[in-house]
Amino acid sequence: MIYVTRKVHFSASHRLFNPDFDDKKNEKVFGICNNRLGHGHNYELEVTVRGKISKDTGMVIDLSKLKDILQHEIVNKVDHKNLNYDVDFLKNVIPTAENIVTKFWQILDKKIEEGTLHEIKLFESPNNFVTLRGE
Amino acid sequence: MIYVTRKVHFSASHRLFNPDFDDKKNEKVFGICNNRLGHGHNYELEVTVRGKISKDTGMVIDLSKLKDILQHEIVNKVDHKNLNYDVDFLKNVIPTAENIVTKFWQILDKKIEEGTLHEIKLFESPNNFVTLRGE
Amino acid sequence: MIYVTRKVHFSASHRLFNPDFDDKKNEKVFGICNNRLGHGHNYELEVTVRGKISKDTGMVIDLSKLKDILQHEIVNKVDHKNLNYDVDFLKNVIPTAENIVTKFWQILDKKIEEGTLHEIKLFESPNNFVTLRGE
Amino acid sequence: MIYVTRKVHFSASHRLFNPDFDDKKNEKVFGICNNRLGHGHNYELEVTVRGKISKDTGMVIDLSKLKDILQHEIVNKVDHKNLNYDVDFLKNVIPTAENIVTKFWQILDKKIEEGTLHEIKLFESPNNFVTLRGE
Amino acid sequence: MIYVTRKVHFSASHRLFNPDFDDKKNEKVFGICNNRLGHGHNYELEVTVRGKISKDTGMVIDLSKLKDILQHEIVNKVDHKNLNYDVDFLKNVIPTAENIVTKFWQILDKKIEEGTLHEIKLFESPNNFVTLRGE
Amino acid sequence: MIYVTRKVHFSASHRLFNPDFDDKKNEKVFGICNNRLGHGHNYELEVTVRGKISKDTGMVIDLSKLKDILQHEIVNKVDHKNLNYDVDFLKNVIPTAENIVTKFWQILDKKIEEGTLHEIKLFESPNNFVTLRGE
Repeated sequence: MIYVTRKVHFSASHRLFNPDFDDKKNEKVFGICNNRLGHGHNYELEVTVRGKISKDTGMVIDLSKLKDILQHEIVNKVDHKNLNYDVDFLKNVIPTAENIVTKFWQILDKKIEEGTLHEIKLFESPNNFVTLRGE
Repeated sequence: MIYVTRKVHFSASHRLFNPDFDDKKNEKVFGICNNRLGHGHNYELEVTVRGKISKDTGMVIDLSKLKDILQHEIVNKVDHKNLNYDVDFLKNVIPTAENIVTKFWQILDKKIEEGTLHEIKLFESPNNFVTLRGE
Repeated sequence: MIYVTRKVHFSASHRLFNPDFDDKKNEKVFGICNNRLGHGHNYELEVTVRGKISKDTGMVIDLSKLKDILQHEIVNKVDHKNLNYDVDFLKNVIPTAENIVTKFWQILDKKIEEGTLHEIKLFESPNNFVTLRGE
Repeated sequence: MIYVTRKVHFSASHRLFNPDFDDKKNEKVFGICNNRLGHGHNYELEVTVRGKISKDTGMVIDLSKLKDILQHEIVNKVDHKNLNYDVDFLKNVIPTAENIVTKFWQILDKKIEEGTLHEIKLFESPNNFVTLRGE
Repeated sequence: MIYVTRKVHFSASHRLFNPDFDDKKNEKVFGICNNRLGHGHNYELEVTVRGKISKDTGMVIDLSKLKDILQHEIVNKVDHKNLNYDVDFLKNVIPTAENIVTKFWQILDKKIEEGTLHEIKLFESPNNFVTLRGE
Repeated sequence: MIYVTRKVHFSASHRLFNPDFDDKKNEKVFGICNNRLGHGHNYELEVTVRGKISKDTGMVIDLSKLKDILQHEIVNKVDHKNLNYDVDFLKNVIPTAENIVTKFWQILDKKIEEGTLHEIKLFESPNNFVTLRGE
């Protein structure tokens, strides 16, 4: 079993709030991430596919295909966007890294046909990141 | 002459547009950075002070003082904010890295008393940055 | 299952030696790390908590709480310290990354109440790091 | 169980092609990596050993020994080389990261005597890497 | 005066040798970089343009235009190539970082029309880089 | 004019204090860096030499010679050492980055014979660095 990882980048804004909470509770729960007009990040996304090495190609998955999937399914939809309002698959979702990564998994798991989606890691900053693993 | 640099970080959102332009021109000039609901970045800010080494302390400037100035004058005002609307000193400014760094200079130049403000570098992303130097 | 990671930094000095060894053996076993007056590192510490996403908050653990725990329980005690002599919980411990990470685990495992401590990674340098995982 | 990782670096060139494919198929399968006269990378190699902490030394494995093994068995043989032709153990192997990491495993697994080889990670670039784990 | 920098990446192979030297002298002068079948690097290229901030746009130069110039004039010509043989403007040039950066300057200086080309920095590895400045 | 830079690394401990100050003043001036038993850093040192490109070699300075000078004159003397007591040329010097870089300049300026020493940059941490330039 080999694990192949591709990293991509996007820049986006978001605001963390739960519409079922009042302002006071939102501020308490989400702190500075609750700022009414939002803030933003340079996100880094690492997507890992596991599989066997093809004898013909020496590869688990053609990385340029994986790159194209990530570009088309994820980066084009979230890069230079507001994650609260601009992204169809994040509508009605609190855009925490945990929730974003869960949605990314649902999308990518269907699109990756060589190998199996193994892990998605999302860095909100160099000091904060979230990992989802298929287990 | 020695140059002492301190790096700090902040996360913010912004939208690039000129209110004197119509939508079409804004989109042409600012491209994806013109997204109506904004996007965001993890900014890195490097501030360099030049001066002579004090024989008593071996330092040009007490870095913890410089850190405090940067925290109080800059980071507290821009971190987890929307740069178009939340920051007094960026009101009516197109929040490009070029303009932000110019405003930072005006603020910091008055506050740094040991040594002389020499250079401010602002990274919008690892691949894009802007430098202002006192010349 | 989601894994949430927070990275923190500290700078410390240490000397590797076993008081039960004589000088010759200490030098042989620990090499340059045995330098009598010590040396030091900028340590990077990554702490990973696993858990389920709360529907209310979209989070596994409030990262600002995790950050506070790390600051209070770890960083305040080891940052700008000598790990051989200044840190209560490292007394009588050879301060290798392996031993330090084991002690950090014992402390943090009791303090993390949302989610479960999953992994601690300690970088002594960009080229050397140690990982402890709850298995 | 503790995991100890050492990172090393090497710079090498390679060309991806399968001698059983004709030119057209090689270009289709390997894309820009099929460039006839090759291209190259600064590779980063992370090797992880797992084991128990020795009470006498506080270490799983003497990192300077691990470093020597990596230098002697890997870096000296691949650094500043052409991976298609200059490296004995890569003869008749398509030098994808997947295949290289597999060959590295076969070599290192025999040489590491303290602890057990756990994982090898090979970065072809900051955005592409491959992981092999003993499972 | 503001300085705006854009970083791009490319992967390439090269071999350092002077055809006027015999083998022995080439090996003495260029050491491991003289390996007959070449080696390679992930190059990082930082291009800095200086100029005044346009009041209309808040920018010195449209970074997406600069990015396009770098992609078209440089990256497309050197990425995944052999710098000794595949690149027209490097024919008959010893492809040291010093010589490459000089050729890049000649090309880019003509193409940058907003602002003035100020500096080109080329990283052969994280530990080796070369800078050319217009002075 | 071309500028060639080589980066090297070392790990060391130090304590900031002025023997002419009493304890109270030392603590006030140097803060946490005054910790009696010291602390430490992974230092990064960038040394830049400027010169003309040799037509014969395409180089300003043979980087392997520069690397040897840095290894022999600097790294061997400060790596895994206590900067207050173990290093001859730092005796009676408060080992701030400013003072260390000044001493490095005095040593290296005499040893670099191809090209001219142009700049020394010393990172105490990714967020703090000091630059000395020959002007």
